[in-house]
Amino acid sequence: MTIGSQIETYIGQQQVESVLTDFFHRSKERAEQISSRYLSLWKSLERCTVEGKRFRPRMVMTPYVHLGGMDLDSAAHVGAAYELLHTALIVHDDVIDLDFVRRGRDNVSGSYRHRAEAAGATADTARHHGLSAGIIAGDLALANAFVVLDGADAPQDTKIALRDILEEAVFASAAGELIDLDFSLGSHAGTLDDIIQMAALKTASYSFECPLRAGAMLAGASPDVVTAIGEFGRDIGTAYQLVDDWLGVFGDEALTGKSILGDLREGKDTVLISVARESSDWEELSFLVGCPDLGVDQADRARTILRDCGAHDYALHTARRFADRAHALLLSGVFPAGLQSALEPVVFDAVERVR
Amino acid sequence: MTIGSQIETYIGQQQVESVLTDFFHRSKERAEQISSRYLSLWKSLERCTVEGKRFRPRMVMTPYVHLGGMDLDSAAHVGAAYELLHTALIVHDDVIDLDFVRRGRDNVSGSYRHRAEAAGATADTARHHGLSAGIIAGDLALANAFVVLDGADAPQDTKIALRDILEEAVFASAAGELIDLDFSLGSHAGTLDDIIQMAALKTASYSFECPLRAGAMLAGASPDVVTAIGEFGRDIGTAYQLVDDWLGVFGDEALTGKSILGDLREGKDTVLISVARESSDWEELSFLVGCPDLGVDQADRARTILRDCGAHDYALHTARRFADRAHALLLSGVFPAGLQSALEPVVFDAVERVR
Repeated sequence: MTIGSQIETYIGQQQVESVLTDFFHRSKERAEQISSRYLSLWKSLERCTVEGKRFRPRMVMTPYVHLGGMDLDSAAHVGAAYELLHTALIVHDDVIDLDFVRRGRDNVSGSYRHRAEAAGATADTARHHGLSAGIIAGDLALANAFVVLDGADAPQDTKIALRDILEEAVFASAAGELIDLDFSLGSHAGTLDDIIQMAALKTASYSFECPLRAGAMLAGASPDVVTAIGEFGRDIGTAYQLVDDWLGVFGDEALTGKSILGDLREGKDTVLISVARESSDWEELSFLVGCPDLGVDQADRARTILRDCGAHDYALHTARRFADRAHALLLSGVFPAGLQSALEPVVFDAVERVR
Repeated sequence: MTIGSQIETYIGQQQVESVLTDFFHRSKERAEQISSRYLSLWKSLERCTVEGKRFRPRMVMTPYVHLGGMDLDSAAHVGAAYELLHTALIVHDDVIDLDFVRRGRDNVSGSYRHRAEAAGATADTARHHGLSAGIIAGDLALANAFVVLDGADAPQDTKIALRDILEEAVFASAAGELIDLDFSLGSHAGTLDDIIQMAALKTASYSFECPLRAGAMLAGASPDVVTAIGEFGRDIGTAYQLVDDWLGVFGDEALTGKSILGDLREGKDTVLISVARESSDWEELSFLVGCPDLGVDQADRARTILRDCGAHDYALHTARRFADRAHALLLSGVFPAGLQSALEPVVFDAVERVR
């Protein structure tokens, strides 16, 4: 998921870029000493990061600077660590989803599939070659998230806490990925609670909650503030994912850049589907959802049913409920005014996208 | 590769078990709070480690205790970290090799393939489900190698050095895996140097060189000793891999537990093949090597050619050369007598297996 499309630059972004640039520069130098092929893998991994919005680093730097943190270089290491974790997760997620393209360009697996084809491999072998390279590249990004994190200059106990939060992000996103995998098997229909839990685990934890807590903690915020910003992150991150699921069916393709046929064809388990499943219209809808060659007219019919049975409104309402709770916490007085203002666009970005 | 089959228990092994048991106990408790399915993934990951020989922890503990280290609990965290890295690498390696069985039992991917089949998935979907679960499980082991490593009680600069060595192991094994992948494509015939480099990267670094250096460093050994034990590890680890490749074609299946048809059928790039490729017998051999349904008689013919062209002896000689160099360094006087005695069985285990 691309988050933060309406959000501009932020304090410390330049420092984050600098940590990432230095990290890739050093890694490429080391890789080149081994072989030109290994250097290519690192270049391919770096390309996965250069077009990102740096949303997760923003979630580190924003609380850091507004809670009194002064050492932007130090915090930038924490921000860069979350960017590398994000890279690892999308590279491995693409392998799991058998995707070879991201944002309209070859991802790591796509590049390596093409290389193998150029070397004369069969389509099957080339595909497997690409996916294997994706596994290796994701491993490098994941391991180095922990290494880069450690570049933050902080007392030993703070460093341990930062590492525990990063590990929590890995632990949660792996759990979310596994639940997603089970859903895709179709053997286990997701309840509303399951779907909300998955959004919290797969998206909110590593993209919002953990980086926000890490930034606040490194700035020396009180445990209450660290806990509160974590809660804010979990709620707003969950809202983001639920809105994203809604946009996957009802969005404006011109704005989201994402087909509104994909999720319906895939039969993706979302709040929309879990509500519709309980309605009397499910019998008709169940023939459309999960149909790999669903046409535009059939998708329109599915949307009509989703509106008529109340799933459309209920899904939006659920997402808004999480966003509203996050917003209320943000304005509750637990955070300084500067942090409130800096995080409000994140709340608006989550829900305004449905307009 | 299973290493250390002839090696018994060692000082500190119990402490390593205890760190790993505690780690999995805590992780399973946390996973259970999320879902029973996530708990199952953790149990499956733990099963990957319980039958291991704990060879990599041994490579940490042995130099540690014989170079004056007194805090076995601390060193055990470093040992356990290398065991988790090993687990991550074999789980992901099995995904890349599309293997669902290890040591005669279902691996993570095998277990999840069966679950998906039981849930009514098609063979293809179940296979993909299993491989995807393997990617997620390997990620958890890899990330937690860094977390467990940090449990070692040591000054900040020692901890940073330990983390750098662990990262080096990840960096090298990823490079080795990538070169292996390119070899398997068949587009790039491995030269002798390539094959030796791959053995050093894929096996020697993370299984020998890095754990040995980490153990010596944590014990407070001088930089000379740390460097020397790293060189010893690179050489003996390379010898191990080269002997393993030789055993894959000429070994006694009853002793190695490994078919001597697999590597020939796969066309695995080894010293044997790289030497044979330069000989006049290559024309005949090239029709046999890489033939997926190679029969027993054809494999015998391939072995005869490999003997006649000198590849059999050359491959053994190359492996012995690395083992001899490691042995000479071990006896050079740079290491205390106790460490020499403790590491000599590792040298013998590497080369004696060919008898």
